[in-house]
Amino acid sequence: MPAKEKTAKIGVLGASGYTGAELVRLLLRHPRADIVLLTADRRAGKSMADVFAQFSPYALPTLTLIDGADWKALGLDVAFCALPHGTTQKVIKDLMARAARTKVIDLSADFRLADPAAYARWYGHDHFAPELQKSAVYGLTEIYRAKVKTARLVANPGCYTTCAELALIPLLKSKAIDPDEIVIDAKSGMTGAGRAAKEEMLFSEVSEGIHAYGVGHHRHMAELDQEFSLAAGRNVVVTFTPHLVPMNRGILSTIYVRGLKASPQDLHALLLKSYSKELFVHVLPFGATPQTRHVRGSNMTFMGVVADRISGRAIIVSALDNLTKGASGQAVQNMNVMLGFPETMGLEQVALFP
Amino acid sequence: MPAKEKTAKIGVLGASGYTGAELVRLLLRHPRADIVLLTADRRAGKSMADVFAQFSPYALPTLTLIDGADWKALGLDVAFCALPHGTTQKVIKDLMARAARTKVIDLSADFRLADPAAYARWYGHDHFAPELQKSAVYGLTEIYRAKVKTARLVANPGCYTTCAELALIPLLKSKAIDPDEIVIDAKSGMTGAGRAAKEEMLFSEVSEGIHAYGVGHHRHMAELDQEFSLAAGRNVVVTFTPHLVPMNRGILSTIYVRGLKASPQDLHALLLKSYSKELFVHVLPFGATPQTRHVRGSNMTFMGVVADRISGRAIIVSALDNLTKGASGQAVQNMNVMLGFPETMGLEQVALFP
Amino acid sequence: MPAKEKTAKIGVLGASGYTGAELVRLLLRHPRADIVLLTADRRAGKSMADVFAQFSPYALPTLTLIDGADWKALGLDVAFCALPHGTTQKVIKDLMARAARTKVIDLSADFRLADPAAYARWYGHDHFAPELQKSAVYGLTEIYRAKVKTARLVANPGCYTTCAELALIPLLKSKAIDPDEIVIDAKSGMTGAGRAAKEEMLFSEVSEGIHAYGVGHHRHMAELDQEFSLAAGRNVVVTFTPHLVPMNRGILSTIYVRGLKASPQDLHALLLKSYSKELFVHVLPFGATPQTRHVRGSNMTFMGVVADRISGRAIIVSALDNLTKGASGQAVQNMNVMLGFPETMGLEQVALFP
Amino acid sequence: MPAKEKTAKIGVLGASGYTGAELVRLLLRHPRADIVLLTADRRAGKSMADVFAQFSPYALPTLTLIDGADWKALGLDVAFCALPHGTTQKVIKDLMARAARTKVIDLSADFRLADPAAYARWYGHDHFAPELQKSAVYGLTEIYRAKVKTARLVANPGCYTTCAELALIPLLKSKAIDPDEIVIDAKSGMTGAGRAAKEEMLFSEVSEGIHAYGVGHHRHMAELDQEFSLAAGRNVVVTFTPHLVPMNRGILSTIYVRGLKASPQDLHALLLKSYSKELFVHVLPFGATPQTRHVRGSNMTFMGVVADRISGRAIIVSALDNLTKGASGQAVQNMNVMLGFPETMGLEQVALFP
Repeated sequence: MPAKEKTAKIGVLGASGYTGAELVRLLLRHPRADIVLLTADRRAGKSMADVFAQFSPYALPTLTLIDGADWKALGLDVAFCALPHGTTQKVIKDLMARAARTKVIDLSADFRLADPAAYARWYGHDHFAPELQKSAVYGLTEIYRAKVKTARLVANPGCYTTCAELALIPLLKSKAIDPDEIVIDAKSGMTGAGRAAKEEMLFSEVSEGIHAYGVGHHRHMAELDQEFSLAAGRNVVVTFTPHLVPMNRGILSTIYVRGLKASPQDLHALLLKSYSKELFVHVLPFGATPQTRHVRGSNMTFMGVVADRISGRAIIVSALDNLTKGASGQAVQNMNVMLGFPETMGLEQVALFP
Repeated sequence: MPAKEKTAKIGVLGASGYTGAELVRLLLRHPRADIVLLTADRRAGKSMADVFAQFSPYALPTLTLIDGADWKALGLDVAFCALPHGTTQKVIKDLMARAARTKVIDLSADFRLADPAAYARWYGHDHFAPELQKSAVYGLTEIYRAKVKTARLVANPGCYTTCAELALIPLLKSKAIDPDEIVIDAKSGMTGAGRAAKEEMLFSEVSEGIHAYGVGHHRHMAELDQEFSLAAGRNVVVTFTPHLVPMNRGILSTIYVRGLKASPQDLHALLLKSYSKELFVHVLPFGATPQTRHVRGSNMTFMGVVADRISGRAIIVSALDNLTKGASGQAVQNMNVMLGFPETMGLEQVALFP
Repeated sequence: MPAKEKTAKIGVLGASGYTGAELVRLLLRHPRADIVLLTADRRAGKSMADVFAQFSPYALPTLTLIDGADWKALGLDVAFCALPHGTTQKVIKDLMARAARTKVIDLSADFRLADPAAYARWYGHDHFAPELQKSAVYGLTEIYRAKVKTARLVANPGCYTTCAELALIPLLKSKAIDPDEIVIDAKSGMTGAGRAAKEEMLFSEVSEGIHAYGVGHHRHMAELDQEFSLAAGRNVVVTFTPHLVPMNRGILSTIYVRGLKASPQDLHALLLKSYSKELFVHVLPFGATPQTRHVRGSNMTFMGVVADRISGRAIIVSALDNLTKGASGQAVQNMNVMLGFPETMGLEQVALFP
Repeated sequence: MPAKEKTAKIGVLGASGYTGAELVRLLLRHPRADIVLLTADRRAGKSMADVFAQFSPYALPTLTLIDGADWKALGLDVAFCALPHGTTQKVIKDLMARAARTKVIDLSADFRLADPAAYARWYGHDHFAPELQKSAVYGLTEIYRAKVKTARLVANPGCYTTCAELALIPLLKSKAIDPDEIVIDAKSGMTGAGRAAKEEMLFSEVSEGIHAYGVGHHRHMAELDQEFSLAAGRNVVVTFTPHLVPMNRGILSTIYVRGLKASPQDLHALLLKSYSKELFVHVLPFGATPQTRHVRGSNMTFMGVVADRISGRAIIVSALDNLTKGASGQAVQNMNVMLGFPETMGLEQVALFP
């Protein structure tokens, strides 16, 4: 591979999971990123090729324990955290205290909720780093770009939430839809469930079929509530049902909304205008709807608006790749913003279809 | 295979499609069915094994043209029609005129709409057999069993419609839910699109992804409107969005409803009671939801009810195999009712999972 | 479901795995089988519906521990053992000592190797029940039917081995092919790997790709060596490479052989003759080859023979469903033979395609 | 997307098929490629986004007819031909006559066979451009790099052939294996069959199963014969069986060989040495074998060597993405060589897994 003009020293904490691997995939082609640290507690001592064979041809740091990391000496420009929920808070607190100039992008849910009470309610315990929780910036780049630019800690949004929020926040902000009448029926690929060995995620358990899960209660609801309420300027609670689809990547959100004086065409025009200058959000012509396969492996969100046959109602369909724009791609996008790089750098990859 | 006590002479018109093959699969194990006629216009002269290799070990009639069939001489007890839309009407009209004792079960959409005006509106032309249209019985067995029993022509319901109607008709009849606030988000396997060679149904076009189609306008809506309006005793129009999922068989309908004085628990109790004696509808415990793979290849419908976190709203999930209960299985169930056989005969097959 | 003429009392040991579930699926439709015992050590106390939701509508015994079973009092006619390797030997030894009239069909590999030395070499320890090992009958029904008839303990063959042995044993017995020039390239669906939660069997690890495993060394080789050597009347060692394919069920063996004076057409004629009266082995016309999907869920083996373009060589392709003819279906077939039932009873199910 | 230093004017003939789309995917990220022409006869007048929605966000030329193209005026540096067999010869002949400086990379099979007699035998008619056939360079880059560099017409190799040839040519050249004892059992994803609407390629026909096809006779054999004979310096005919696997992309070739004085370890060492400086061929450690998913979307070939348990025999497994290294990726690699660009330019993409 050709030499890269390297400037940013990057660490990936939790490199043996799917979002970790996706970060490495993207960063390997980023012309200004230099991966100097990869941690994976249960695989420490192994090579990245041992846990993800696709990296066999590339030179990458050996996987190490987090515990031994000397954050100060490492001098990371950016640390991506792709760790399981809970541990994250302590690791980040420690890292940020020791390495004053390292910026952190956290891909877990740990810093997404700004309200300590909401956090405690949804996660069953008080936050372990409440001061950091306050200062963390919610990294939905298109919406919070200015804040991300100056943030030291970015809470990268969830995959379901990115998909639905990009479609709905502009409409709620404009008061174009009724905040009490939103139904989000979401369908996700299997990588969204992570790489932990669970019976219910075996190939034979989840191929050739579809099912809903977390019906009526799913932690991503807390994130939706926060962002939709902020956008609407009032309390918003939506109906949200996630499903598992026999595919690796992709989220499709079919969203049922009702216009407030706004026709479906108005909603479409609003989205088109909101994202006219955005390179990672593509609004399809009115009446067209997206397929997840057409954004696979890219950082794109495709969305479409259709008029329901019931007057005043519209159906919005939003699609992204849960590992890219729904996780690691948006994390790299945030890194670019935080470091002053061109926002699309390393993210130009066109979707892999078929 | 062991000898069968054969009594009913059966013809399958359109045996080279998926619903045709599913009829043959089920009827081969039906102890009182004797397949004496298989038609397939484009494959006439071939053996069933030529078009579906799984039938290689079985003795079956050679595929023939419909045109040459001498309906009177054949003396069929039951003719299953699995023909494409349009041709069906003329074929059935002719067959029923010539063979006075043959009963017909039509798996197309041709006789499902009782209202000639609705038919013309949705299909763009007047019905070719309006008198038959009037006398046809809508074959949603659990709901119309008494009428099916004495029918000469049964219009077998669609797959999407069977799945949603079994869940909603008891609730609408009881006025337990608001008929103006129903959203049906349906997900179907690929066999629902039939066996015609279309680019958009190639493996590489539809695997590894999900998408909505027919958003805002799908012909199954006409059938839903008819049955829901009948059940509610007033005009009902629902929001309905179908999706294609990379799996062969199965429909999952995620249905968003609002109770009228009825809690989600009440809705569950109502469904449980409605289907307590039904062998092909299984209501899961409150809070549980079904997976399509658990009904694969069986004639079962599994359904579950969950309380939404928004008070007064419930989420109902209904699952069936689109080729079995959603088409050919229900057709055999109707045949059993029409001929006075035990209703489950030939349909005892347990779902194939994994 | 209609009442069954029940005669045989059946126990399934290890009902929470895939072969266990497949046994239950088949036995529920077997007119002379009555399931009275289901064990599953890690799930004891649960219902079968808890571990396999497709059984929700059926009345089945609660899952119990093996330890508490009073084999004598239970008075089983047949015990199917679908337990992991190793434990099996002790359980069966104990069961057979206590319940003098219970016949045992073991689906593990524990009793397949007749030679204690071969067992020790492949499994790394001496057999725990060497006397039983000697008396066990290898249950490849079509080949050992007479012995199975009078056996008390049947060692049900492996899935890969059944698929390859049915194709090759008649040819080796007739000395029609060179025993030193056999290459078996086998492809299996994912259920062959069982239901244990392993990272490498997660959907996202094994979908959308194919790979070989156990290359050069796989335990099924021991079984192939034994049976091929017996058939050839001399020592036979074959090349065998298994692969994992992103599908639930099915094994396809592509077998490369060289005729000894026998042309590919001769080999085909030999197979056709060998299986002319067999109901579960179907030899396709010369030049045609099978697809696994056409035997899915059935107890059929389909096989075909093609001439290689290199003179004197032939390619044989054999296909079966690893859970049915490759495991539980053949186990039920053996039960039928052992109990004097018609051999196809409960196994008449036609393949589920599509 | 960032501005690109554009130097080469590129045309893609046949852009509406899968190899056409893959070319566009790769070229969009190639820093020195400028797509100025896209043809697609049946879709002329449409946008690329109309036929492949993943390209919606990108500015690309409208699809045009080949017939109207003014090859001289266009002044293409490189024309990629991804047309169906047959038409290709006439189109290229015409193009090369009119546009003296345009280089052509043909992805069809039309110019791969150097011997006119072999061509006529396999394709049933004389070649339409026999002079060009003589001058065409077979574009297996790693083997023919020097010739590719100066070629005006490159015949890009087939997917099956690239996969097997990269593994075997170095061994045949070194006379390390017996040329008469090669068995290639190949497994391909569905995109290898192209985008034509055929019943046998529908999702429901090919998912959830595996089958062999073209057994004993497949056109890729002609290409294998030519290259293996050239490498061995004598006539070589191999046994080759292709299979279809339910995945979009990937070819896995399991190759059975016998060493001539060379041990399996020697074969491995030979491959390792042959490809030590190659960036797109990665030889795994001895005993390890590749998975197709680990090269998905990349231009990599992964290969491994294992000792068979039969002494003197080895099993080589080779994996690539049929659309990338097996078609469009290698075509871009050839373009880079022909135009003097760095060979990996635009092909640095890491495999997309999971």
